[in-house]
Amino acid sequence: MKIKIVGAAAGGGFPQWNCNAPLSRAVRQARPGFLARTQSSLAASADGVHWALFNASPDLRAQIAATPELQPRADGPLRHTPIAAVVLTNADVDHIAGLLNLREREPFTLYATARVLETLDANSIFRVLNPAYVERRELPLSGTTELIGPDGPTGLSIETFVVPGKVALFLEDEGAGAENFGTRDGDTIGVRIASDRSGDTPGRSDPHRCIYYIPGCAQVDDALRNRLQGAGCLMFDGTVFVDTEMHDTGVGEKTGARMGHMAISGPDGSIEALRGLDIARKVFVHINNTNPILEPGSDAERFVTDQGWEIAYDGMEMEF
Amino acid sequence: MKIKIVGAAAGGGFPQWNCNAPLSRAVRQARPGFLARTQSSLAASADGVHWALFNASPDLRAQIAATPELQPRADGPLRHTPIAAVVLTNADVDHIAGLLNLREREPFTLYATARVLETLDANSIFRVLNPAYVERRELPLSGTTELIGPDGPTGLSIETFVVPGKVALFLEDEGAGAENFGTRDGDTIGVRIASDRSGDTPGRSDPHRCIYYIPGCAQVDDALRNRLQGAGCLMFDGTVFVDTEMHDTGVGEKTGARMGHMAISGPDGSIEALRGLDIARKVFVHINNTNPILEPGSDAERFVTDQGWEIAYDGMEMEF
Repeated sequence: MKIKIVGAAAGGGFPQWNCNAPLSRAVRQARPGFLARTQSSLAASADGVHWALFNASPDLRAQIAATPELQPRADGPLRHTPIAAVVLTNADVDHIAGLLNLREREPFTLYATARVLETLDANSIFRVLNPAYVERRELPLSGTTELIGPDGPTGLSIETFVVPGKVALFLEDEGAGAENFGTRDGDTIGVRIASDRSGDTPGRSDPHRCIYYIPGCAQVDDALRNRLQGAGCLMFDGTVFVDTEMHDTGVGEKTGARMGHMAISGPDGSIEALRGLDIARKVFVHINNTNPILEPGSDAERFVTDQGWEIAYDGMEMEF
Repeated sequence: MKIKIVGAAAGGGFPQWNCNAPLSRAVRQARPGFLARTQSSLAASADGVHWALFNASPDLRAQIAATPELQPRADGPLRHTPIAAVVLTNADVDHIAGLLNLREREPFTLYATARVLETLDANSIFRVLNPAYVERRELPLSGTTELIGPDGPTGLSIETFVVPGKVALFLEDEGAGAENFGTRDGDTIGVRIASDRSGDTPGRSDPHRCIYYIPGCAQVDDALRNRLQGAGCLMFDGTVFVDTEMHDTGVGEKTGARMGHMAISGPDGSIEALRGLDIARKVFVHINNTNPILEPGSDAERFVTDQGWEIAYDGMEMEF
């Protein structure tokens, strides 16, 4: 199974269009070592020919232009895409807006949970994805789904599971109270991705062949720890390093927790919560432009890598 | 007044994500002379500091990254944008999807006609533009509007006028019949842009100081010809060279007319329709990836330039 990080940044990207904080400024000025990153998306393929995209970021057109694997084959028909399926893990704008780039009567299969599909249905702009070409299939909150593209099975299967998260910002219901803003169980899912071709059926015959993609997660509980035990790779929510870093850097008031993201550091952070598990590779994805791990040589970057975690970048490739 | 073409291509951009036709393939392969173009957008500024954006394309984040004038000033506050106002000429997805990039609690003023505002209101995803920061102001179908940003007047005024067009694809009403698909008068507007600072008030004291931006237009009538007489610059719908070119190149069945765009060439084309007018500069914008004027040295490109028209490219600058 081939994996490519299409976009490694959280919503807004790196730099963020209106951000003048030191990190965004440094990458905008092309300071050495700083890597621009587009908004969060992952591509996976069992055969190197048919690809599944996990989340469709607002940067998708530029991401396709930067990713030869996602471009029409030079010897292909007049209209063609290697993107056979798109899987959405929630309805965040930085995960669904990119669908608006996938128009022009191109067949692919769109997978999302019932609530995310409801959000797409409720927004007429997503009618640019003509149902005659783009089949929408409901993902269960828990269970295994074989990803089928217009040419048939892609050779990829996913297992979906609910993770603690938050309802998308634009769907927040202030009346529901400041505790959860109308968040319901299942607003955010994680996915386990496995290739049928490597003998790794959803029965987990070879756990090191499967990977987990969890770009948003508010909390790690025992069930999640148990699930991740033995994984070949975990790509996990690396939005913020410190829960209060948006406030600390002066760019906003929201905490990571308020946005549905647990911090990387600290006793309640993801590094502690996931310590001691048998996971072959651990990679932080969905990295916010305020996160100090984006600065090469920073204490935060060293801490994370010393703890055995990798920091995703656009174009990062892995094979399992 | 400074003008910058932020994106010169029609919907889909150049290359289009799923297009393997010779033009898209040539630009994807970086063949000499072929220029990649992002989706249609224009920026204008009276003072070089505050900018108005005309249409918000799905490529907006990448376009801002490529346009220093639209980035936060290096000596500006932690959050900042030179974009003071955004003006929408219709509800086409390639003109409105970029709004989803302008979130993160940044004040600017959004101008659109009542019908376009209705479309935004009806799509909850546009709530990412928090009304506490982004004021939505209605544009008249006919009349003059001073563009006001969060810091006050931008020094730009626009005159809006209805042009023959078509309702946005995702709002088409099949039941309304194949004649117009539910298109109503006012679905598409053109704008005259003028700078107050150059003494060019909307009273047209110095017509060569004003420019017209008409990225979508299905037909030129006498009223439009009279209006354009004496303009400093006309940026006009250059979507297709020949009405049937999508069919002719095998990538689709729709004609230019079916999409609300008149062709460049032919007796009913825009070059003929606009011939003989006193317009200092004429520039084709909103160029579809099937349009042969995108090929350097092609007959179509030579024809257009021989007729005194320019072909827009991303980053093209003009001053009036």
